[in-house]
Amino acid sequence: MPTVNAYAAVSATEPLAPITIERRDLGPRDVLIEIKYAGICHSDIHHARGDWGPQSYPVAPGHEIAGVVTAVGSEVAKHQVGHRAGVGCMVNSCRECANCRSGHEQFCVKGMTATYGATDKDGTLTHGGYSTHIVVDEDFVLRIPEGIGLDAAAPLLCAGITTYSPLRRFGAGPGKKVAVVGLGGLGHMAVKHAHAMGAEVTVLSQSLKKQDDGLRLGADHYYATSDPATFEQLAGTFDLIVNTVSAGLDLDAYLSLLAVEGTLVNVGAPAEPLSLSVFSLIMGGKNFAGSLIGGISETQEMLDFCAEHGYGSDVEVIPADKINEAWERVLASDVRYRFVIDTSTLA
Amino acid sequence: MPTVNAYAAVSATEPLAPITIERRDLGPRDVLIEIKYAGICHSDIHHARGDWGPQSYPVAPGHEIAGVVTAVGSEVAKHQVGHRAGVGCMVNSCRECANCRSGHEQFCVKGMTATYGATDKDGTLTHGGYSTHIVVDEDFVLRIPEGIGLDAAAPLLCAGITTYSPLRRFGAGPGKKVAVVGLGGLGHMAVKHAHAMGAEVTVLSQSLKKQDDGLRLGADHYYATSDPATFEQLAGTFDLIVNTVSAGLDLDAYLSLLAVEGTLVNVGAPAEPLSLSVFSLIMGGKNFAGSLIGGISETQEMLDFCAEHGYGSDVEVIPADKINEAWERVLASDVRYRFVIDTSTLA
Repeated sequence: MPTVNAYAAVSATEPLAPITIERRDLGPRDVLIEIKYAGICHSDIHHARGDWGPQSYPVAPGHEIAGVVTAVGSEVAKHQVGHRAGVGCMVNSCRECANCRSGHEQFCVKGMTATYGATDKDGTLTHGGYSTHIVVDEDFVLRIPEGIGLDAAAPLLCAGITTYSPLRRFGAGPGKKVAVVGLGGLGHMAVKHAHAMGAEVTVLSQSLKKQDDGLRLGADHYYATSDPATFEQLAGTFDLIVNTVSAGLDLDAYLSLLAVEGTLVNVGAPAEPLSLSVFSLIMGGKNFAGSLIGGISETQEMLDFCAEHGYGSDVEVIPADKINEAWERVLASDVRYRFVIDTSTLA
Repeated sequence: MPTVNAYAAVSATEPLAPITIERRDLGPRDVLIEIKYAGICHSDIHHARGDWGPQSYPVAPGHEIAGVVTAVGSEVAKHQVGHRAGVGCMVNSCRECANCRSGHEQFCVKGMTATYGATDKDGTLTHGGYSTHIVVDEDFVLRIPEGIGLDAAAPLLCAGITTYSPLRRFGAGPGKKVAVVGLGGLGHMAVKHAHAMGAEVTVLSQSLKKQDDGLRLGADHYYATSDPATFEQLAGTFDLIVNTVSAGLDLDAYLSLLAVEGTLVNVGAPAEPLSLSVFSLIMGGKNFAGSLIGGISETQEMLDFCAEHGYGSDVEVIPADKINEAWERVLASDVRYRFVIDTSTLA
């Protein structure tokens, strides 16, 4: 069983620290990946700190993983040594239920196996990308096309697919007006995707602080939600609003921005229940939807789409010993737009 | 200006009473309809009693109107004397805004003109179907096909289109599992439509009291929502749930009954805001939507669909002097499944 270096949460309250973890021996359908870069997702912090339920420790977070295949099991057909490879938020699922069969492994009725903090098929705790190597079943390994740097590719495995999936599902494209609420790690990917899909893109952010960035990333318009005039001016405008903000939202106010039969889709989940008036949905025949990452085949489609259109994530690459500092900056929304760990600094 | 007999609300609190109202002189694009039957919709009661805001009195309610054309204006092209004609919830709209042009006159940005209780284009108060005659612009007059009795056709103009539109929009059809919450005036039409569209239909009702009816109307399954086992047994089942109940609902519980990417659509609007956990939407990528009647062309499509499949509404025909009693029975949910006024009793 290979022992590899990692950076892990050791409790809900202490700083992350360097440790060693064990990866399973390569099974016939497993792929060994030398991790090059691992993105830092806000949910890493929620998980590690126990915000979403009790967690086992130590656990190495990270579900935005980009690297290179260094070994494959005897039956592996989809990946070869030397291939650029990615791993996202899940490393296994039952593959037999209706949801797995329809390409929605993230909604496996038996529960998908999360990339870290979950019980693996061998009974051990899964560990994520804040480490030098990972062993993953070939069906849950993505191919990262040439043309995207591995650093810029890492965040696509969570932030990228989380925003791509609802944009595709709800028809972002030419002639469609799409708004993105919040310009953080998820929001900046939503803007890039929606722009590449050909939609007319508007950023709705608390302030105009990141307006230049937003326009550079592909937005056509940028409005401050702190200005009540924004809601008057944009009433009835959007076919689709992707809300990347996890804090509670005045749903009725945002629904008022939708055109007839438009959709407000949340990719973030506030901890507290939200309230809305059903009249906000009935008048205009509107939708309020949720979306969670995407299935494996859709994730591959997204990676290929990004490569075709020549973009990845905007990243700030950090060495492993800056992870704790980066987490504090993520909590303060002080990152443009994703921290990515150079995992060679763990060696 | 023709004076015609009607039954009207004279205040928010008094019983309805026979009065006479004036209809406008036939304009070049107007159609004069001799009303044969008028359905009683629960919203007539809400409107007349001021539940949804102040109302002008006296007002004759009724927006489920079926009759025969007895005169047409000089420029009328779509309707002829002797044609079977229907009028639903609206009698005009601007016809120029994006919503009108896309066939969503009910969401006219200038506001559609409601069939009763609204200000008509001549500045007078509109009066509805609880009367012997009505004058309506030809663009807002529907053709009622042969093969549906006018009594059974009347409720199609509101209850019929209100349920047909979301079923069509969200893909009810062969291979789809559709649930209908509540078996009242709206619910019984939702069951008939969904069955005719080829979906597998389940009724979710408070009790099993109307089970025999539900199955006769076309449902394949019938469950009592008062039994908590229903929610366990049906978890993750439905592609579409049409909620016809206006009372508040445990949204998270009903969302748990949806399959992946399924939709819960409300056609009723509870007066109070509802609360939901966004996790209920994100897990399974689900939708919570609203729907309001349907546009004119979709209403015609629905009437043609009903005729093709040989059904109308299940009605209890009453004379005008039973309207007040019928309203009390509607409030007590004591009708199977729509009261229809025989307007010849107003003559």
